[in-house]
Amino acid sequence: MTTDLGPESLTAAVVGSFKNTPDQRLKAVLESLTHHLHEFVREVAPSIQEWEAAIDFLTATGQKCDDVRQEFILLSDVLGVSMLVETINDEETPDATDSTVLGPFHMVQSPERVLGENISAESEGDVCVVRGSITSVTGEPVPGARIDVWQANTKGFYDVQQPGIQTIGNGRGLFTADEHGEFYFRSVIPSYYPIPTDGPVGDLLRATERRPYRPAHIHFNVAAPDYMKLTTHIFVGGSEYIDSDAVFAVKESLIKPFTTNADPEAAAALGVAAPFVEGVIDIVLHPEARPHEDSNETVKEIVR
Amino acid sequence: MTTDLGPESLTAAVVGSFKNTPDQRLKAVLESLTHHLHEFVREVAPSIQEWEAAIDFLTATGQKCDDVRQEFILLSDVLGVSMLVETINDEETPDATDSTVLGPFHMVQSPERVLGENISAESEGDVCVVRGSITSVTGEPVPGARIDVWQANTKGFYDVQQPGIQTIGNGRGLFTADEHGEFYFRSVIPSYYPIPTDGPVGDLLRATERRPYRPAHIHFNVAAPDYMKLTTHIFVGGSEYIDSDAVFAVKESLIKPFTTNADPEAAAALGVAAPFVEGVIDIVLHPEARPHEDSNETVKEIVR
Repeated sequence: MTTDLGPESLTAAVVGSFKNTPDQRLKAVLESLTHHLHEFVREVAPSIQEWEAAIDFLTATGQKCDDVRQEFILLSDVLGVSMLVETINDEETPDATDSTVLGPFHMVQSPERVLGENISAESEGDVCVVRGSITSVTGEPVPGARIDVWQANTKGFYDVQQPGIQTIGNGRGLFTADEHGEFYFRSVIPSYYPIPTDGPVGDLLRATERRPYRPAHIHFNVAAPDYMKLTTHIFVGGSEYIDSDAVFAVKESLIKPFTTNADPEAAAALGVAAPFVEGVIDIVLHPEARPHEDSNETVKEIVR
Repeated sequence: MTTDLGPESLTAAVVGSFKNTPDQRLKAVLESLTHHLHEFVREVAPSIQEWEAAIDFLTATGQKCDDVRQEFILLSDVLGVSMLVETINDEETPDATDSTVLGPFHMVQSPERVLGENISAESEGDVCVVRGSITSVTGEPVPGARIDVWQANTKGFYDVQQPGIQTIGNGRGLFTADEHGEFYFRSVIPSYYPIPTDGPVGDLLRATERRPYRPAHIHFNVAAPDYMKLTTHIFVGGSEYIDSDAVFAVKESLIKPFTTNADPEAAAALGVAAPFVEGVIDIVLHPEARPHEDSNETVKEIVR
C-alpha cells in the first residue's frame, strides 16, 4: 500500500523505503530518524505555515554557513545535541579526560607552533601560561601527542570573527608534546563571550529569551596514534556564566584555576617573568577508536 | 544543576532553557523537538564523525537552496514529513478535496492568465484541457476562487529547471474561477519525472538505493476568502510510478483519467478542436482557517 497513506502507515512506508540500503548502519540511523521525526510531527501537528517556517529556518541556517561560520553546529550546540553526542561517547571512556563540545569556531587550520610560543599576537589581556601533560589511562606519558588549541581573545572574539582586527591564526596553535608527554604555551586569559547572534540561531535565542553567553574557555583537540581523539575545553575557574553555559558544555572536571605562580625558577623554565598566571591541564587519553568510527564509509570530516 | 549534565539531565536542562519563551506555541514546539531529537540521538548514539557528517549534510542542503531550488522541501518530501504534515491537517477537513505536498518547485509567481489560456508555450506534448469547478463543502460554487497551477513539461522538467530552454512561467498559470465557480485551461499532459538528484537529497537516495521518480501530476493551490487554502495535485491516471511516488504523496481520490472527448460542441465551448483530451477535477474547499494559523507571529511565508 503506497497510496492513501495515513499518519501511521506513512511512517511504515518511509521506513520501508530504506530497506535496500547497503550500509546497515546508515539504514538503522535513517529508520530511527524517521520514527522520531514523524513522532515529533504527529505530536505538534504543525500547520502548513509552521512547516514552511521550519523549512525557512533550516534553509537560513545552512545559508548562514561559510568558510568561517558554522551555524548548524551552533544550532546543534544550543539545542544540547552537540553535548549529548559528546556525553554519550564520553561514557565509553570513563577514565579519560572528559570531552566537551567542538563548537563552531574550529574552521581554520591552527598554525604549527613550538612549545612555549605565544598564541596571542595581541598586546591587550592578562598574559598566562597554559601547561600540562598528556598521558594514557594507564599513566604512561604520550610523547609526540598533537595538541590543537584555539580560544577567544580578551574581548571574547575568535580570529575568524574579527577580520582586519585579528589575523587568522591568532589565539590558535598546534603543538607537539615533548618526550615526556608535556606541553606549555603562552597566551592571554580568554574572556567569556556571547555566541554569534546575527543569524537564525540568534533569532531563536531572542524568541525564547535565552542568554547567549559562554564562560571563558580554551579549546583542546588532542590526538595521538593508537588513542581516541579528545575534543575538550579548559574552563577558566571563576569565569562569569560558568553555571549557565548557553551550550550546556561545562563539566566540573574541566574547570581549572588560573593562579599566580611567583616561583622565579618555574618562570625561568617557562621563559616568562615571575610572577606569572598559569593554568594547568593534565589530559588523559583513551586507547584505540570505536570500531565503527573508521569503517563507516558515509562519514566525512568537515572541520579540521 | 547546569554543569556535568548526563544524557538524561541534559534533555531536562535544554527543555528548561525554553521556560521564558513568550509565545506558548513556540515553547511547546521546542520542548517537543528537544525530547524527540534527544531520544533519536540517544537511540543511535552517533560517533563524533557521524555527527559531523550530519552537520555537513544539513549545511549542504541549505547551501543547495536558491531562488529556484528548495532542497530542504525536497528533504522533507523524501522523508515523508511533508506528506505527514499535509495528512494531519487534512484530517481536520474530511469533506474537502484531499491535499497533498507542495513540492519544491513553487518558487516563482505564476503568470496571471484568463480562463482557457494555454499554460504551455511548447509545441511538444499531447495537448489537453483541464477543467473543473470550485465548490464549498456545502455544495455552493465559489466564484472568484484563485487557482494557481504549475506542472512539468512533457520531458518531466519545470521551467525553473531549464533556464534557456523554457521561459519562466511556462507550465504555470494563475486563474480566477468564473461566476459559476468553474475554470478551464489548456496545457500538455505532463510527464512523470525524477526529483532533482544533483544535491544532498540525491546523495541520500543513491546511498539508500531509492528511486527518485514521481508519477505525472499537475499542482494546484486554490484560495478564496473565508476558505482554507488547498494545496493539492491532480495525478494523471495510468502514469508510471503511480504506486511508488518518491515523496509518498499519491491519494486515490486525486488520480484522474485523462480521456478523449469527441464532442464537437464541448470542443467549441472550450476553444479547441475535437477530439481532445481532457482531465476533470472538481475541487471542494473547507470554510475558515485553523485559529492558530493566523495568530502565530513566528510564522513567515517563504513560498508564494
